[in-house]
Amino acid sequence: MNGAEAIIQLLCDSGVEVCFANPGTSEMHMVAAIDGQPKMRAVLGLFEGVVTGAADGYGRMADKPAATLLHLGAGLGNGLANLHNARRAYSPVINIVGDHATYHLEFDAPLTSDIAGVAAPMSNWVGTSTSPEDLAKKGAEAFKAAMVYPGQVATLIAPANHAWDECKETAKPAIPSQPKLAEKSEVDAAVQALGKDGNTALFLGGRALREDALVQAGRIAAATGARLLCETFQTRLQRGAGRVALERLPYFGEMAADYIKDFEHIIFVGAKPPVSFFAYPDKPSFIAAEHTELLILADVHCDAEDALTRLADALDAPDEPSNIQAPMLIPAEPGRLTAAGVGSVVAELMPENAIISDEAATSGLALFPLTAGAAKHDWLNLTGGSIGQGLPVGVGAAIACPDRKVMCLQADGSAMYTLQALWTMARENLNVTTVILNNSSYAILNIELARVGVSNPGPKALSMLDLSNPTIDWVALSEGQGVPAVRVDTVEDFHTALKDALAHNGPRLVEAVIPSPGG
Amino acid sequence: MNGAEAIIQLLCDSGVEVCFANPGTSEMHMVAAIDGQPKMRAVLGLFEGVVTGAADGYGRMADKPAATLLHLGAGLGNGLANLHNARRAYSPVINIVGDHATYHLEFDAPLTSDIAGVAAPMSNWVGTSTSPEDLAKKGAEAFKAAMVYPGQVATLIAPANHAWDECKETAKPAIPSQPKLAEKSEVDAAVQALGKDGNTALFLGGRALREDALVQAGRIAAATGARLLCETFQTRLQRGAGRVALERLPYFGEMAADYIKDFEHIIFVGAKPPVSFFAYPDKPSFIAAEHTELLILADVHCDAEDALTRLADALDAPDEPSNIQAPMLIPAEPGRLTAAGVGSVVAELMPENAIISDEAATSGLALFPLTAGAAKHDWLNLTGGSIGQGLPVGVGAAIACPDRKVMCLQADGSAMYTLQALWTMARENLNVTTVILNNSSYAILNIELARVGVSNPGPKALSMLDLSNPTIDWVALSEGQGVPAVRVDTVEDFHTALKDALAHNGPRLVEAVIPSPGG
Repeated sequence: MNGAEAIIQLLCDSGVEVCFANPGTSEMHMVAAIDGQPKMRAVLGLFEGVVTGAADGYGRMADKPAATLLHLGAGLGNGLANLHNARRAYSPVINIVGDHATYHLEFDAPLTSDIAGVAAPMSNWVGTSTSPEDLAKKGAEAFKAAMVYPGQVATLIAPANHAWDECKETAKPAIPSQPKLAEKSEVDAAVQALGKDGNTALFLGGRALREDALVQAGRIAAATGARLLCETFQTRLQRGAGRVALERLPYFGEMAADYIKDFEHIIFVGAKPPVSFFAYPDKPSFIAAEHTELLILADVHCDAEDALTRLADALDAPDEPSNIQAPMLIPAEPGRLTAAGVGSVVAELMPENAIISDEAATSGLALFPLTAGAAKHDWLNLTGGSIGQGLPVGVGAAIACPDRKVMCLQADGSAMYTLQALWTMARENLNVTTVILNNSSYAILNIELARVGVSNPGPKALSMLDLSNPTIDWVALSEGQGVPAVRVDTVEDFHTALKDALAHNGPRLVEAVIPSPGG
Repeated sequence: MNGAEAIIQLLCDSGVEVCFANPGTSEMHMVAAIDGQPKMRAVLGLFEGVVTGAADGYGRMADKPAATLLHLGAGLGNGLANLHNARRAYSPVINIVGDHATYHLEFDAPLTSDIAGVAAPMSNWVGTSTSPEDLAKKGAEAFKAAMVYPGQVATLIAPANHAWDECKETAKPAIPSQPKLAEKSEVDAAVQALGKDGNTALFLGGRALREDALVQAGRIAAATGARLLCETFQTRLQRGAGRVALERLPYFGEMAADYIKDFEHIIFVGAKPPVSFFAYPDKPSFIAAEHTELLILADVHCDAEDALTRLADALDAPDEPSNIQAPMLIPAEPGRLTAAGVGSVVAELMPENAIISDEAATSGLALFPLTAGAAKHDWLNLTGGSIGQGLPVGVGAAIACPDRKVMCLQADGSAMYTLQALWTMARENLNVTTVILNNSSYAILNIELARVGVSNPGPKALSMLDLSNPTIDWVALSEGQGVPAVRVDTVEDFHTALKDALAHNGPRLVEAVIPSPGG
């Protein structure tokens, strides 16, 4: 057994089943070790951002980590943006990053770089093996770090000689730690706040957005009339008809501040007090009003369902939650397709138990409310704001949940960052329907340009926000990577195309041409 | 004037003419400042690896930096791999990375990250402005750092409030420092080594590979019979018929070691003693034989042409260099296209003064010798080993040299990392002909798998090195981004297609289907 075989064995023994990989020469023994391990599935991505984003999507759906296999500092660099998103999503991820053999580093060969330095900003845990035996031991530590509730990004650097040198045995799997529990004093404080006069809201995020936790939140609402809010960008929100419904905090800071300004108390579970996504001249960063009392019942690392259950019980709340979402479908206006039209049709056709990967950016603002009363589904959002997440997360979700339909609702500008994900969908025949909402623009930046105070932008500025010259042909980009695709620009054609795509048990893409911000 | 306007003015005053940009909300004032500055060209890339790779290509051809404009730590992360290559190329590059307003950082908004930490591994200089006035001052420092001979990567972090707040004036451009000069003792030592019995080689890299420096190397060869070698992966090699020809060090370590094992002395100019690109079990990292005396006449930061001129003069070398490359065209074997066939046709059709961006990987091994006697051209290579460089470097070279034809000779696997570069070629109507050598494989890894000692790899291992399922349709990926394309698989059709592509003054792509390693 060599070090590579030992760590792959350890990961399998720990329950890791999938490795999303984009290996190079320094990872060839890892490739061979995976090859020899029937319990480990290997999924090739043609760009590292696909690999790390897929691991994020897998982690969100499986609640346990996939491994990634990345090539030195530069390969890890290509994966950083989606690791940033994974870190913000609190997804469990284990990166295995190959390095040169330890004795080779002093020669500063061309691909040498400070891998630990590259890893640190986007990782909760970074380790480097010190010997072939230590490689699997560090793998166990990485697994434990990744499993810190609700999940963390762990990056393990594996020098090539530790992978290829012999070692006697693998390591023992680490036992993940239990999540923190909310303090009784915090539950008591929440009970007190909910008993007071004045508006109170529960503000939910992280694992509080799973169905069972939401039932408890709905019980609290039933007992107290508290409003149920959720963070703007959710890791994984279980929603749809029959589930406890939430109000989503608006994206723009001043709209968010206005939305919550009248609450006397806000109780946070799995989330922290919201802040403006960006800073703007003369606008506040912190959103909550001064008079609002903010109580952290359970921070993101605290067991959210436990905290909500104990709070509901302490309030003697009824078993039946309130705020149950009724089925609701808002018919699309016929004719020219818009983001709202896409939302209505998606809501109508979405199959029960679908997984939605939402990176629709400005168009997503319309999609979210229109799908609130659709069939039950999981909604995965862009947690870290680094675009290029949606398609890779769809890949990972589909690998984690092969029996469920995945739908990627994807803006065109963002999709370009990691379009190579389509190839992996084709190779693995993943059950993913992608809708590209193509407005040929970084539409959000047209809005932000004005919001930051730039008036009368000239043609050079506008050209930097424009994707229409040349127009991107998403049917070509999709079919060029093996995913059948069709382009539509009316509600009627979109309905037909989406229905057809969803009927296939494999990857399909629908390019939905919608108006650009210019009209 | 605000801070953004001040730094853009400073960069223009310093001679920076181009900004390769992929901005976000926190860079909108930079966008506006560029908009208002007629001397600064803005070139949009749809992925940051395109932006940084283009800056690398621009720097290699212009010998001065372009700016990049990147969005926070995640955006910089996406650009790291090609900054790694730029750093290894000693290209002058100035990155401007937006950050949140300074007062916003404490709130840890979703896109917040340790930008300086992300920048450090791939930057020679990192700075963060401390005020609106300091932004332009730091810009001057960044310019000076980028211009340290032959070039460096400088990364300046620009908090949004420093960009939008008022400041009274811009800063004064910094005067770049002069390159170091070789010590007289080093010239004397080289003279002595060249006078001794035994084989002696000049080993050239960096700026020693420019035409004028090579004339001096050719004079030394004429005077002493010294062999003229060059590093395997050159930043910019001026070659072709009528220029001084060099022998290229082989890629694989043991072949390289064998190649140089008989030299008694090797004199390095603009390069350091070669090492194996990767480590392999039981193979040496350091390549030179123990008996070989290694002399550093001029390290990479030392003026290469000056050192070679002084050495030639000290040797009383004749004015006329030896080792002049004769025109040479090796006809392609008709029929099924191969990498060699591509090389022969490229050599025949290459216009005078072309710029070649070579990321053809295994196929490139055939292209390089076959083009040695073609018309004069500049050859740009993958300096840092991080694939995904070729197309972006072609973009930057074309922006720097609008009157020259750029040819990207590009492997399929590598091209997938930064295929978004094609869109920028179309938008800017760049004079770039791309040849995709499509063997549907990470062919190099099939070789490396055996070289690191993995015998009998199974189907799972081989699938991680294979790009044939599904086959990538490069014509679709190119035309989907606005670059006309054609696919060929015979020498005759390739000749017709390449001739046609080169005849157009704008971007074209030829997909050259060549045999995969499996046959």
